Amino acid sequence: MPIALIILAAGQGSRMNSDLPKVLHPLGGAPLLAHAMDAGAALMPEKTVVVAGHGFEDVAKAARAHDPEAIVVRQESQLGTAHAVAQARQALEGFEGDAVVLYGDTPFIRPETLEAMLAAKAGHPLVFLGFEAAEPKRYGRFITEGDSLQRIVEYKDATEAERAITLCNSGVLAADAQVMFRLIEKVGNDNAAEEYYLTDLVALARAEGLGCGYVTCDEAETLGINTRAELAAAEALLQAAKRTEAQENGVTLVAPETVFFAHDTYLGRDTVVEPNVVFGPGVTVESGAQIRAFSHLEGCHVSRGSVVGPYARLRPGAELAEDVRIGNFVEVKNARLDEGAKVNHLSYIGDAAIGAHTNVGAGTITCNYDGVFKHRTEIGARAFIGSNTMLVAPVKVGDEAMTASGSVITSDVEAGALAVARAKQAVKPGLARRMFEKLKAAKARKAKEQE
Amino acid sequence: MPIALIILAAGQGSRMNSDLPKVLHPLGGAPLLAHAMDAGAALMPEKTVVVAGHGFEDVAKAARAHDPEAIVVRQESQLGTAHAVAQARQALEGFEGDAVVLYGDTPFIRPETLEAMLAAKAGHPLVFLGFEAAEPKRYGRFITEGDSLQRIVEYKDATEAERAITLCNSGVLAADAQVMFRLIEKVGNDNAAEEYYLTDLVALARAEGLGCGYVTCDEAETLGINTRAELAAAEALLQAAKRTEAQENGVTLVAPETVFFAHDTYLGRDTVVEPNVVFGPGVTVESGAQIRAFSHLEGCHVSRGSVVGPYARLRPGAELAEDVRIGNFVEVKNARLDEGAKVNHLSYIGDAAIGAHTNVGAGTITCNYDGVFKHRTEIGARAFIGSNTMLVAPVKVGDEAMTASGSVITSDVEAGALAVARAKQAVKPGLARRMFEKLKAAKARKAKEQE
Amino acid sequence: MPIALIILAAGQGSRMNSDLPKVLHPLGGAPLLAHAMDAGAALMPEKTVVVAGHGFEDVAKAARAHDPEAIVVRQESQLGTAHAVAQARQALEGFEGDAVVLYGDTPFIRPETLEAMLAAKAGHPLVFLGFEAAEPKRYGRFITEGDSLQRIVEYKDATEAERAITLCNSGVLAADAQVMFRLIEKVGNDNAAEEYYLTDLVALARAEGLGCGYVTCDEAETLGINTRAELAAAEALLQAAKRTEAQENGVTLVAPETVFFAHDTYLGRDTVVEPNVVFGPGVTVESGAQIRAFSHLEGCHVSRGSVVGPYARLRPGAELAEDVRIGNFVEVKNARLDEGAKVNHLSYIGDAAIGAHTNVGAGTITCNYDGVFKHRTEIGARAFIGSNTMLVAPVKVGDEAMTASGSVITSDVEAGALAVARAKQAVKPGLARRMFEKLKAAKARKAKEQE
Repeated sequence: MPIALIILAAGQGSRMNSDLPKVLHPLGGAPLLAHAMDAGAALMPEKTVVVAGHGFEDVAKAARAHDPEAIVVRQESQLGTAHAVAQARQALEGFEGDAVVLYGDTPFIRPETLEAMLAAKAGHPLVFLGFEAAEPKRYGRFITEGDSLQRIVEYKDATEAERAITLCNSGVLAADAQVMFRLIEKVGNDNAAEEYYLTDLVALARAEGLGCGYVTCDEAETLGINTRAELAAAEALLQAAKRTEAQENGVTLVAPETVFFAHDTYLGRDTVVEPNVVFGPGVTVESGAQIRAFSHLEGCHVSRGSVVGPYARLRPGAELAEDVRIGNFVEVKNARLDEGAKVNHLSYIGDAAIGAHTNVGAGTITCNYDGVFKHRTEIGARAFIGSNTMLVAPVKVGDEAMTASGSVITSDVEAGALAVARAKQAVKPGLARRMFEKLKAAKARKAKEQE
Repeated sequence: MPIALIILAAGQGSRMNSDLPKVLHPLGGAPLLAHAMDAGAALMPEKTVVVAGHGFEDVAKAARAHDPEAIVVRQESQLGTAHAVAQARQALEGFEGDAVVLYGDTPFIRPETLEAMLAAKAGHPLVFLGFEAAEPKRYGRFITEGDSLQRIVEYKDATEAERAITLCNSGVLAADAQVMFRLIEKVGNDNAAEEYYLTDLVALARAEGLGCGYVTCDEAETLGINTRAELAAAEALLQAAKRTEAQENGVTLVAPETVFFAHDTYLGRDTVVEPNVVFGPGVTVESGAQIRAFSHLEGCHVSRGSVVGPYARLRPGAELAEDVRIGNFVEVKNARLDEGAKVNHLSYIGDAAIGAHTNVGAGTITCNYDGVFKHRTEIGARAFIGSNTMLVAPVKVGDEAMTASGSVITSDVEAGALAVARAKQAVKPGLARRMFEKLKAAKARKAKEQE
Repeated sequence: MPIALIILAAGQGSRMNSDLPKVLHPLGGAPLLAHAMDAGAALMPEKTVVVAGHGFEDVAKAARAHDPEAIVVRQESQLGTAHAVAQARQALEGFEGDAVVLYGDTPFIRPETLEAMLAAKAGHPLVFLGFEAAEPKRYGRFITEGDSLQRIVEYKDATEAERAITLCNSGVLAADAQVMFRLIEKVGNDNAAEEYYLTDLVALARAEGLGCGYVTCDEAETLGINTRAELAAAEALLQAAKRTEAQENGVTLVAPETVFFAHDTYLGRDTVVEPNVVFGPGVTVESGAQIRAFSHLEGCHVSRGSVVGPYARLRPGAELAEDVRIGNFVEVKNARLDEGAKVNHLSYIGDAAIGAHTNVGAGTITCNYDGVFKHRTEIGARAFIGSNTMLVAPVKVGDEAMTASGSVITSDVEAGALAVARAKQAVKPGLARRMFEKLKAAKARKAKEQE
């Protein structure tokens, strides 16, 4: 059966106290919306419709960035969940199959849960997702009979007996698309908030003699984000899960609580991660690498046996082959380092290729920017770049070549050659002492004047 | 009614195991004493008297640094709280009004609590502050009747019934100053410790037919600091409060537990703070700025849209206009960066002004110190400072000027000009290869010799 | 009575999911094995035998690195604890005295506990170590009578009543060596796992009319490591203990949970440690020093009054005399800095000596490596090293000498002299502006072409 995903992402999230639409706040380095889209994408949907409203342009852009085939529709006014789903109708004109309704601010739904809902659809055209709430508070309650969902009772309408029920409504729905859209037309807004509620579908289905089913999941999956504190709590949950996953894969985290992952971080077996390491999106680390303290990695690849940090920053496009060494206060961006290359101290390597077993001295900088364009630096294998070499790109240094420390290299250096660009040392005996004495005398005069 | 603040700050704090007087240990970047003084300052006192003893000079200096009008008096020997308060008498000679007695090691008292005490003074010349203790332990107990405080019973003198009381004495007092000083003269030291206790005032007042009142506060407000562990616990409380406050103001803290605030840190709405950021005193960040991981800020201002870090250090006097970019391994001190200026990598900018949209290349250093004096560097707008430029201050670089990478700039550069100060590149074919071979041969010889 | 230590360290630790033998995983910067060896070493053993198996060579190397006199024996197949101990017999041929059996993956046993076991040996030739288990799970239970251990019952063989016992077996044993080895010969492997168990010694001893004693310890001491998560939990315990110890010694940890110690870190009284500091092995810090945020120290000594960081990295062999200042983005390795020396910004100081009160400017690098050998830099007292000075080692700079900023120093500089090695500044009026215009025009052309 083909599947259509409908992701509700129109809310402002006023309790976030933010100009950024709620669903674009990041979690594990990806917007909340992307997490919901990923959960649904695991079902291989034929169509994905994102219903956007507040911050429409930004939400649409993010949705399409994450899935270029996503259809984004606009909900002009936020008149309730049923109204939001109704906005997807036109985009799904003629679609025959199952619709799955998810929420852009509910990032932890597991694909397995959605699959269970689709399986439960065998018995019922509409399947709702419930959870056993630790503190049911004001959630709507599920009134069930066997595997059938009889009603969803709103808290304010519930009797004492109904309020004692702890099986609550998550809002997630899997339904025959055509049935769902037909029933949604009948939903009214005759309630305190004057909103159109998706939960009304249960009664409307039953009125037509259609049954509803339900599936339950862990409460943690249904966690929605409404405030910065809830966002931070969700981030902490995601981090805890990623840390445990890494440990189970044979990664040593010396102080797990100080290592921050992105949603997609991959660390190979026997990787050792020291305290205080931050992984941005897009990082893969092969087995047996070492990520030392205070390192920051984004969009990069670290191969087996490489050692990174402490205080190393790998930016997008950094590709480290095996046994590479990136040391302290070193930034690498859009650069490939071949096997055994070393950049140990205080360097900036950007838009570059560095050959195998080449040693790059402390304070080396690839001068890749001329104020308008970026240019590339290419260094061969077994070369020796002296400390504080400026490599003014575009420039090439050949295999086994050497640059003298403190040189500004503006022309290519052929293989095996030594390039020097520095002034001769002149020494002026006694001059330092005389200069110091003068300066101190000036200071003394100044102090006297201020008395 | 005029108010006089009396802050007891004479104790050594021997359990701190420190040469630093206890009240000078910092909390949220300010000495404990300053926190107590701030709580009292909210009452707009006419006079503030700090009673110092251990480490008198240092405490006096800190008190005056925090409030130049503070009067610091000396308590030669620490003979009890009543004795300590008595030292303030001379400084308050002729003062008519309310005295509020606070403690330099009790940083969390809220101004609202002190105001409630002053309000309660309407009914009683002396008002004590109590709290419901979770574990009353050996605190003195309040024996009350209605809104009147009958007695304060020391634990060791208390009956079983009295020990069951959980309303305990914080030591904080608001009193008619003249009544208080008159009663204090009558306090004796006929007790095990041979100390003069402020709590004796209750009985002495009643003996004169004067009533005592009381006010209660949350136990957390009365938290006193006696050990390094308690200091760390207090710091954790302050941090938790600052983090929550920031989140409620619409700040995203990706990992709140890794962000450390000073007592006065201000972050605008929609600021995003990544993990592992430390704010020292005196930082303001406008809305929508981004403080990336591993950054350290003190005494600086960051304007809207600016991005700082990762690994950026802003020191006192750093002023960032809008949309400024300070990147990794960059230190900025006493320098103003105008709108859109960029210092992205490995630089030191001290005692400088940098114009709008100027780009400062990697490895740039303002050489501001000649061994005795500090000098300024001024760079215009839309300039381009090449990588590894040394700006030997005092020096000026004009608008739209450029420096070649690796140049040492010792003279001013006019607007639109290019300044170059570097040696020509010479290349010696084959020399690197020959040098390497020689070195390797030497190494082999050495290895052989050591056999 | 002479003592022989037998440390069982042959297991693979398959649940670690690692190529590294379990006992070599580090805790507080030292392998688990070293912790067990240290606990035993406090007894001043005459002989220490490490029984290795999985990863034999690596374990043997680590054992000998930690104690050059350790005897390492091989257990070819892991056939149980009694079999493991039996491998030590030959190495202890002729030894008369007490044997203490420890486990390489049980790092928290306290020497005091082992001493208590040896004291208990007065009454019994074999003494086992038990602990009150919070959750006894499947541990073997101690059946005791007075101070005598009657039996150790395996969980699966235990009656309900026996399972209710919470005094469990840790596996640690102190025994008369000759008795122990004699009894071990009789241990059989007639059990489900076909292993030879050390616990069988109790019954075998009793069969000979010999009594067994027992001693109990805190459960935390018997914590064994089997997974990465348990390793991280053990690390957290060690860190908590080190933090508390530091606080009790009069150290301020602003945010204790962010400071990571090695097993041997020593911090003097009134040291202040800011958030996010990592101590590797071999660090001593004298009283009254300050370790600022984001610093990383290994194998170094910091004297009284010195200030390190933020973002300072001290590597092995860094020796800081009193009142030294190491600032941000500075790396120091194998270098001594005399009293009052300052290296404040963006520098690499390796294989060097720096005299008293010398100031090293920002961006200074000791070029200590020529691609094959390392060389030393020596700088005298009260010298002034200009910013971005390259010191090409071997090189000496005398007392009160000065180097001009941006100089590459290749020859020695005598005392009081000024060394300059830089090109003259040339200024080309208007050239920067023309270059920018050209580049922008090129960019515009490019953009047009891409339309």
